[in-house]
Amino acid sequence: MNYNLSRIFPPITTPFTDEEVDLNKLINNVKKYEPRNLSGYVLFGSNGESAFLTRDEKLQIISAVREQTKKILIAGTGSDSIRDTISLTNIAAEKGANYALIITPSFFKSEMKHHTFLNYYNRVAESVMIPVIIYNVPKFTNVNIETETIIELSKHPNIVGLKESTENTSRISEIASNTPESFKVFVGTASVLFPGLISGADGGILALANIAPDECLQIYLNYIAGKNKEALELQNRMIPVNRAITTKFGVPGLKAAMDLMGYDGDNPRLPLEPLNEAQIIELKSVLRKAYLIE
Amino acid sequence: MNYNLSRIFPPITTPFTDEEVDLNKLINNVKKYEPRNLSGYVLFGSNGESAFLTRDEKLQIISAVREQTKKILIAGTGSDSIRDTISLTNIAAEKGANYALIITPSFFKSEMKHHTFLNYYNRVAESVMIPVIIYNVPKFTNVNIETETIIELSKHPNIVGLKESTENTSRISEIASNTPESFKVFVGTASVLFPGLISGADGGILALANIAPDECLQIYLNYIAGKNKEALELQNRMIPVNRAITTKFGVPGLKAAMDLMGYDGDNPRLPLEPLNEAQIIELKSVLRKAYLIE
Amino acid sequence: MNYNLSRIFPPITTPFTDEEVDLNKLINNVKKYEPRNLSGYVLFGSNGESAFLTRDEKLQIISAVREQTKKILIAGTGSDSIRDTISLTNIAAEKGANYALIITPSFFKSEMKHHTFLNYYNRVAESVMIPVIIYNVPKFTNVNIETETIIELSKHPNIVGLKESTENTSRISEIASNTPESFKVFVGTASVLFPGLISGADGGILALANIAPDECLQIYLNYIAGKNKEALELQNRMIPVNRAITTKFGVPGLKAAMDLMGYDGDNPRLPLEPLNEAQIIELKSVLRKAYLIE
Amino acid sequence: MNYNLSRIFPPITTPFTDEEVDLNKLINNVKKYEPRNLSGYVLFGSNGESAFLTRDEKLQIISAVREQTKKILIAGTGSDSIRDTISLTNIAAEKGANYALIITPSFFKSEMKHHTFLNYYNRVAESVMIPVIIYNVPKFTNVNIETETIIELSKHPNIVGLKESTENTSRISEIASNTPESFKVFVGTASVLFPGLISGADGGILALANIAPDECLQIYLNYIAGKNKEALELQNRMIPVNRAITTKFGVPGLKAAMDLMGYDGDNPRLPLEPLNEAQIIELKSVLRKAYLIE
Repeated sequence: MNYNLSRIFPPITTPFTDEEVDLNKLINNVKKYEPRNLSGYVLFGSNGESAFLTRDEKLQIISAVREQTKKILIAGTGSDSIRDTISLTNIAAEKGANYALIITPSFFKSEMKHHTFLNYYNRVAESVMIPVIIYNVPKFTNVNIETETIIELSKHPNIVGLKESTENTSRISEIASNTPESFKVFVGTASVLFPGLISGADGGILALANIAPDECLQIYLNYIAGKNKEALELQNRMIPVNRAITTKFGVPGLKAAMDLMGYDGDNPRLPLEPLNEAQIIELKSVLRKAYLIE
Repeated sequence: MNYNLSRIFPPITTPFTDEEVDLNKLINNVKKYEPRNLSGYVLFGSNGESAFLTRDEKLQIISAVREQTKKILIAGTGSDSIRDTISLTNIAAEKGANYALIITPSFFKSEMKHHTFLNYYNRVAESVMIPVIIYNVPKFTNVNIETETIIELSKHPNIVGLKESTENTSRISEIASNTPESFKVFVGTASVLFPGLISGADGGILALANIAPDECLQIYLNYIAGKNKEALELQNRMIPVNRAITTKFGVPGLKAAMDLMGYDGDNPRLPLEPLNEAQIIELKSVLRKAYLIE
Repeated sequence: MNYNLSRIFPPITTPFTDEEVDLNKLINNVKKYEPRNLSGYVLFGSNGESAFLTRDEKLQIISAVREQTKKILIAGTGSDSIRDTISLTNIAAEKGANYALIITPSFFKSEMKHHTFLNYYNRVAESVMIPVIIYNVPKFTNVNIETETIIELSKHPNIVGLKESTENTSRISEIASNTPESFKVFVGTASVLFPGLISGADGGILALANIAPDECLQIYLNYIAGKNKEALELQNRMIPVNRAITTKFGVPGLKAAMDLMGYDGDNPRLPLEPLNEAQIIELKSVLRKAYLIE
Repeated sequence: MNYNLSRIFPPITTPFTDEEVDLNKLINNVKKYEPRNLSGYVLFGSNGESAFLTRDEKLQIISAVREQTKKILIAGTGSDSIRDTISLTNIAAEKGANYALIITPSFFKSEMKHHTFLNYYNRVAESVMIPVIIYNVPKFTNVNIETETIIELSKHPNIVGLKESTENTSRISEIASNTPESFKVFVGTASVLFPGLISGADGGILALANIAPDECLQIYLNYIAGKNKEALELQNRMIPVNRAITTKFGVPGLKAAMDLMGYDGDNPRLPLEPLNEAQIIELKSVLRKAYLIE
């Protein structure tokens, strides 16, 4: 395989039928993504409802997707427990994952400081068979890993990237300019994809790529081609859509948008609930204004 | 067994030797607690570093403690995943746990509202073999379950209590006065044990009870005896100690204090680090001022 | 005058007619409060919409109320500016204010630490003609003054009290037991009046006392008489009302409740807006359940 | 005067000698800035310690600076009180201010929503003699004005711009692309100046421009010239400096850096304290690494 850890990755959602993981629907989605020029897939990231999946379900997802693609698979295998993280990462690697996306530990929030993060990531990185991508997502963890900590961690040969899911492009600038070329920085939300790329990011891992992969790729390609004006215009068109499927309506909104766009979104797993009718109407309006649906 | 789900429970810590759970040390601690009039133990709660333990380690802890005591065992079996929560709770019950302490789900913070919590707790409660105690601890989850949600959940026959780990005694007042007598409310931090009891709480699940079980019990007994002045004086003496082992120094501080008090605290598990020398000196000073050590 | 800085104070609201301070309505309210056994009034505290008042309006309010009462007047004269605070406090004193309620400075939040607060309060206290009461209200300031800072400030002869507007009774315990008898601690929200008093507070400065002064006083008197059960019952009856007029509906809700209770609440000042019809219906329901209206 | 409300403005600091505003030092600073191609100055913004200044001091500052320059003067005249804001803005206009920078009201945080902001800004804008620039700075206010609210306010003929002091360039994108050309968007912190400009901002109001005006201008000019690589490199060099004088060391750090760079920074006003020796050494190191000092 010709690894190319850059460009655009969708953190794919997990379809459920009657509360069970529906691998057929998941595969259907992957089949629709495959012809696109996406670099690969993130499996059971936040948007994959990793928090609600069992270990076995996660492993089944890797196997199922691996059969469908030769692209890069990044698995969300991190948790507060170093042991569980190492164990899940290594079995995920056996099942076909190429990289591990490891969320910052966060339970003891006030203790999550520079040294704690060094302890955690270095220990994990030295014990797993596939390279580690750090995942910073304060909106879910209420913890923010400092840029200097990431810069120090980037020296570890098995820590190869960052998904930065804040909208703070200053962090991307600073990290991208102070880490090795081999350390890949991913914009973690489509609302700052273009300014993130121009600030030094290598690509994006974007919920929006689940419903608008072509638009995400086009922003990237415009940026690469130096077409900043076109990139910005498309970026601006996507911002309200991205907000609708993330901060505004969350995973239920993302899944509803997938349904509207011809993918298999389906319901979120309990305890989450699907959007109600009024929310779907609002969502449709947002998609329509962005010319994603008619 | 004669269950009495009230009074004082320590959420016992988990000793580690070379990063491995040390059941012998854990049993040593339990043996020191057994002669006290504690009602039982909380196993792998937050202070038990549940976040860092594997499923197997948790089950070993239940078995080991169950052999030492006929008192009530409350196991911290909750996670965001309803499936994992049900599965772990039921196997914990088989190993000897009497109650399940189920932390609020919290990953998708902005979605954690009234209906989501009803979905979660009702689904869990109807599927587990032992009664459920709700665990509200915003300092770790950044989520706060509303009093009205708890009051509604208290109607479920298998939801029997609450550990309230804020210092807001208004919540305790309101919940205790609007739930059945059989629904037990536990003060979750010793800093408000006395005002919590006088506001209607039935007991306390208190990190402080790991190092000062007799003092915690004495506050409770003073309250029961109507000796409010004595209860308040002892409460006030304990407040700085409680702060030192919780908000100030966290689990590493609690474990260091256990060492100083003759228990087996030992180091926290990675990524946490033990206190440094200066911190231990400060901790000693706090314990000394409270007459807990000389 | 026989000062008695304890018991219950309402932080009275400021009525507006066509966006102008309506002193007649304000005086009407005071006349209704005067026969009650309230110890005095807080003028232009948070609930008095101090944030929206000009300096001249504040001084007019003092003069108007001073003419109606011989009770204690506490004026909310604090701001981030030490100069403005001193200047307003001293002219307020000339107009008849007996104490100054000085909110924690808060603009530069990350700088508001132990030494900064010492700088601020000591400088103010040494420069004003009336005694200072510290006002801690994190829900408005997003700043929390540490208990140890308050304890140190309590040594200043002109710093004589604290309004603690969190619901954390542990802070009240710790402060009341570590400050001189002459330093008065006021519970700042009625939701924890009883546990606050039993934790060592001397009285309450309570938004609720604007609409239910007798109930607030009765909780206090029950506590003094050792009737804890009666105090708790009344406390519990008041908690939903207190929430409705504070966290739920804010000052607009407090003013609407005053209207419903026979006082002159009237509209809040712009940019705030009065409650809408649906909110008023909900508010009525809350007052009715607490037997405050029929 | 040929107004050009774009490019770079320093929000100039206020020097104090023995706690008194030192207009001579302030003028010295302005004289050093004047030859630069700065578009003007923001007077008593956050970094001007507006929170600590009296009304008279603010007016003296306008007059003093107005005498030194024909450039644009933007005065920070906002507060929660609509009356005070209008009154101060109009007298500031008389003294020579060209624009008013009006911080979001923030005291009643939970009430600060779409309609409240519309009420506030529309009322202010229709009553003041100079155009209004909205100032969004959640790190000081703990309030965030929604992009849709700003977009709606941009329709008011007397609301002509925004200082956006978050590091979220997605907000800048969305606002800049949905407001009239005449509505100017200013990046509010130098850490995202370049990505902010490329996302559609018109200029920057930057604490950093107090100590490194030429570098800030150069980033701007590089951007205008399409030299993105050079802009980014300079941006990246400035990020650690910007952090040092804002989030890390605050106004005391900014003033210490001014001293080190040859301006009159001097001490902050009480209750703030100057940096200690260790902090100054750390600050020097940061400036040195950025080639700002030797």
